[in-house]
Amino acid sequence: MTTPSSDTGPQPSVYPGLGLVEPKSVELFPDGMLLESGLKLAGPVTVAYETYGTLSPERDNAILVCHALSGGAHAAGWLPGHRKPGWWDIMIGPGKAFDTNRFFVLCSNVLGSCYGTTGPSSIEPGTGRPYGLRFPVVTIRDMVILQRALLDHLGIERLLAVAGGSLGGMQALQWAVSYPRVVASAIVIACTHRHSAQQIAFNEVARQAIMADPEWKNGDYYGGEGPKLGLAVARMVGHVTYLSDKGMEQKFGRRLRNRERVGFDFSLDFEVESYLRYQGMSFVERFDANSLLYITKALDYFDLSSGHGSLTKAFHGTPAKFLLIAFSSDWLYPPYQLKEVAQAVRRGGGDATYAEIKSDYGHDAFLLEYQAQEPLIRAFLDRVQGSCGFASA
Amino acid sequence: MTTPSSDTGPQPSVYPGLGLVEPKSVELFPDGMLLESGLKLAGPVTVAYETYGTLSPERDNAILVCHALSGGAHAAGWLPGHRKPGWWDIMIGPGKAFDTNRFFVLCSNVLGSCYGTTGPSSIEPGTGRPYGLRFPVVTIRDMVILQRALLDHLGIERLLAVAGGSLGGMQALQWAVSYPRVVASAIVIACTHRHSAQQIAFNEVARQAIMADPEWKNGDYYGGEGPKLGLAVARMVGHVTYLSDKGMEQKFGRRLRNRERVGFDFSLDFEVESYLRYQGMSFVERFDANSLLYITKALDYFDLSSGHGSLTKAFHGTPAKFLLIAFSSDWLYPPYQLKEVAQAVRRGGGDATYAEIKSDYGHDAFLLEYQAQEPLIRAFLDRVQGSCGFASA
Repeated sequence: MTTPSSDTGPQPSVYPGLGLVEPKSVELFPDGMLLESGLKLAGPVTVAYETYGTLSPERDNAILVCHALSGGAHAAGWLPGHRKPGWWDIMIGPGKAFDTNRFFVLCSNVLGSCYGTTGPSSIEPGTGRPYGLRFPVVTIRDMVILQRALLDHLGIERLLAVAGGSLGGMQALQWAVSYPRVVASAIVIACTHRHSAQQIAFNEVARQAIMADPEWKNGDYYGGEGPKLGLAVARMVGHVTYLSDKGMEQKFGRRLRNRERVGFDFSLDFEVESYLRYQGMSFVERFDANSLLYITKALDYFDLSSGHGSLTKAFHGTPAKFLLIAFSSDWLYPPYQLKEVAQAVRRGGGDATYAEIKSDYGHDAFLLEYQAQEPLIRAFLDRVQGSCGFASA
Repeated sequence: MTTPSSDTGPQPSVYPGLGLVEPKSVELFPDGMLLESGLKLAGPVTVAYETYGTLSPERDNAILVCHALSGGAHAAGWLPGHRKPGWWDIMIGPGKAFDTNRFFVLCSNVLGSCYGTTGPSSIEPGTGRPYGLRFPVVTIRDMVILQRALLDHLGIERLLAVAGGSLGGMQALQWAVSYPRVVASAIVIACTHRHSAQQIAFNEVARQAIMADPEWKNGDYYGGEGPKLGLAVARMVGHVTYLSDKGMEQKFGRRLRNRERVGFDFSLDFEVESYLRYQGMSFVERFDANSLLYITKALDYFDLSSGHGSLTKAFHGTPAKFLLIAFSSDWLYPPYQLKEVAQAVRRGGGDATYAEIKSDYGHDAFLLEYQAQEPLIRAFLDRVQGSCGFASA
């Protein structure tokens, strides 16, 4: 298991917000898990998760938070030895948008990842060695089924909300469609109802960069070097798509890296080059290349209308309320895609609130523009809770 | 020297337009060429070029056409054994936008390329082996200086126009600023006056993909395998940036490649994946990886205002007329960049015509939207020629 964060270092002397939190883990599906592909993943399937706040006696205040491509179950609070809190700590905690004085918040690492939940770097039962490419391809629907099993294990029958950005938002959409009677609302940020050709294309470039690295060894690199350079290139591609033209111009422009003038060579000239190389190489320390292959494939396979005939039919009759948030400069998941979701929900008779936040941060805005998102989420959750959100199970 | 095109195959039985054309070559700078970096490139410097049409007795009808990143001197007409004509044949020939009944059109391969002009795959004098990374870094200004030397050799003192798209457009801009008394007009398509952070970032990803390939061998791969997989990944990144979201959706969508359903594995699922892999692998057959490193670096160094204080000052007092053409869906070189050029030319007292063509083809539009460009270019050249364009030399 890769460590969830490279942010180790001196511990802070105080832990604001949720304070220290506890990583948890459970084994589910002892007899194996049937996947959307028809293939079976051998049991048991391990799920890493964390919880924040307290489940109400009525068990009606649970919110599932879903992470993005390279995230993990550690969404909020502090783990011993870490310099930074969880990836959405700014939004989860006492008095925050996901107020842990009111809500019981959960987050679990997705199927196929490398932060504690079973994935391609896990040991294949009966072989004593990591799966590699023998791990079956998983889908976002499979990720959601595993989350549902976790909730069953925890005795949670209903969710007040499922929330997330990017891959996390797609899980929230899938939850509302797969389990309309379980989910009172979905908070869907910076994502799409199905991957477009351009979105598939960027993922394919990332996969090919990994597979081009001879150290990838067809996925059987565990115990060896691993495809470090290929994974770094894959991450660099990702990072360009997470920013915006204007945001990059403001952040880097043509500023040089510790130089008076360009070097007229192939060493580092521009700050943006230095930023990308750093992002690429630091990612290698904390993420598994095969997990990137599997999760990008799950993203590319995502098409919410699949099996329903149309997107509108997928939402038809769902009682869940939707809050859909897009960002003006997000060209990886452009706003028009969540607008289509809002239209489909409404055409299906449902309740959708669509908000486009003006931002120069590109796709990264979903993690950075918390001040603009917080009042939207707070008001939405008030409304969902006030209308005693749950349909009869 | 790599062959200029992979489009070999059965020859057509007729050669429409210009018919068969002749590849030419000349050696210039016998004593070496001083570069913008201060470094000296050993002489002689070879330049590959082609010409179409006839130079007028007054020598006032010459138009220099400049190619893009992966192009060469073969801009129009047919070479024996090729299935396709030159890269801008649709625009150059009798009766076409660049009408060879009226104009004498030239195109030369840029310094640093691999299609006949001296570059990193050329033999380093005195060593008997290819330069590799011992080739000095070149700039767009250096490319233009070499073109100027070619014109001197051909006895051409003035250009009615310099024209090109992408890298070719940047050369046209550099010509107008470096030699304002030589150039009557510049036709500048789908490019910028300086590379932005995002443009540098995409080029850096491409370079890192090449350099991550162990077969790159720090540039000394000639005679060996070469960084095929790395170069293919670099080209794949490029191709995603050449298309648009909408264009890719129309061209590929989520269509599967010869399949009823997705494969739930890492073989080819989607047509867009197949397209990218094909583009990547076919590029490897026809382009030199080191040339890609050098030319992308020249693009990243490009900043027309450099040495002038501002873009407006760079254009101040230039007598050249400018036709600037951008495409609505080109997000690699977004229209706002050429709008800035138009404003700067006008603020400098100059004559700029800016046109934004509505298109879904993204950056590729500069090669595809010929019907929209042709009347603009034709009218512009008429106006330039009619105003007997040349300032006194």
